[in-house]
Amino acid sequence: MDTTKKTIILFSGDFDKVMAALIIANGAVAMGDDVTIFATFWGLNILRKPEKVQTDGKSTLQKMFGGMMPKGTRKLALSKLNMAGMGTSMMRKANKAAGGMSLEELFDSAIENGVKFVACTLSMDILGFKEDEMIDGIEYAGVAAYLGEADEANVNLFI
Amino acid sequence: MDTTKKTIILFSGDFDKVMAALIIANGAVAMGDDVTIFATFWGLNILRKPEKVQTDGKSTLQKMFGGMMPKGTRKLALSKLNMAGMGTSMMRKANKAAGGMSLEELFDSAIENGVKFVACTLSMDILGFKEDEMIDGIEYAGVAAYLGEADEANVNLFI
Amino acid sequence: MDTTKKTIILFSGDFDKVMAALIIANGAVAMGDDVTIFATFWGLNILRKPEKVQTDGKSTLQKMFGGMMPKGTRKLALSKLNMAGMGTSMMRKANKAAGGMSLEELFDSAIENGVKFVACTLSMDILGFKEDEMIDGIEYAGVAAYLGEADEANVNLFI
Repeated sequence: MDTTKKTIILFSGDFDKVMAALIIANGAVAMGDDVTIFATFWGLNILRKPEKVQTDGKSTLQKMFGGMMPKGTRKLALSKLNMAGMGTSMMRKANKAAGGMSLEELFDSAIENGVKFVACTLSMDILGFKEDEMIDGIEYAGVAAYLGEADEANVNLFI
Repeated sequence: MDTTKKTIILFSGDFDKVMAALIIANGAVAMGDDVTIFATFWGLNILRKPEKVQTDGKSTLQKMFGGMMPKGTRKLALSKLNMAGMGTSMMRKANKAAGGMSLEELFDSAIENGVKFVACTLSMDILGFKEDEMIDGIEYAGVAAYLGEADEANVNLFI
Repeated sequence: MDTTKKTIILFSGDFDKVMAALIIANGAVAMGDDVTIFATFWGLNILRKPEKVQTDGKSTLQKMFGGMMPKGTRKLALSKLNMAGMGTSMMRKANKAAGGMSLEELFDSAIENGVKFVACTLSMDILGFKEDEMIDGIEYAGVAAYLGEADEANVNLFI
């Protein structure tokens, strides 16, 4: 076992939970750890390009999911007190006023500092997300890859 | 520590989270791991027989909980975008179209491949669930048993 | 690695999830483990004094968050079936009828038996929570402290 490795399954796409995941990931890489974030289901949303990408081969259902789910971190909503977006906007302002890093800054910092982001290919197949729609610099893998990394890590969280 | 053991506390009864738990569990047993899923609170619902079972000794409150909570995997709803069941139905269709295993197939596969399902007796006492109402082949235990298994595992998730 | 240490990130402030966290924590200390609960975001609510505390230096946003979020365990709501508080009240009654410890008893027991509660200072800064508003006997720390403890523990959950 390697005490310098951490994995996070990012299942949630809630603003607050993504923020928690990124704070932990940034903290761990700052302490010299290797960190892998496996984004699955709603968590995949943070890895989507914010702009609409022309794609082929999506079913009507997949187009609907794609249209309903947020693209990138800027559209995420709080898990509680969202109040049609007002609560999330308040949380962003309170965070900024407190001198905290924005969700976007936390995400950019994680990427710059080497947090490895892996998009779950099984979820992508279901939701119809194509690699062209995802940001650059991420990896694609399934549950076996996750389990392989989790076996090497000493902290494995599901968020 | 045994790198071939995993535990999952399945607290959630959401369709998507149960699916994630079962995908991880199936993946792990396929790789030769021992996997135990401790179902508690809403997670207990997946272990309930789908049909109504005549039981004695339930309080009115417990009858109400029993009536409001889904029996088995077929009645579970998405944690997000459920839209009165339409979203869950869409997710099931998209999954099927993508060639994925249904939630029921994942559950059956987990049982066939030796994933151990343990129902939390403390939650059962509160909710009034009786062993007659639960599917065959599962075990019953409390938090001490969970902690004993978690001490032997190298990946312990709370879903 | 020390098999007698456990950490829980308590991100949630939902009645049912807090209950699960406290049951695990109480079970682990009863078995001789060291347990640390890092309360962050909504989880901080359980560490707030139930009464209103006069504080200086809060922004309007922070006053709003403080007013909207529950103070202490008595005001927490179920994550599902809350039904404007009726579901939570039913769950409390069903738990009591089953002879279970109340959420407050679980919390007091955790404190008496040495579960260490740590309030996340980063979340406190954002939400404007001051130490005067938090109950006595807890510690204050950030993500680095969490990671340090998680490295020493063999079970690390995110709830």
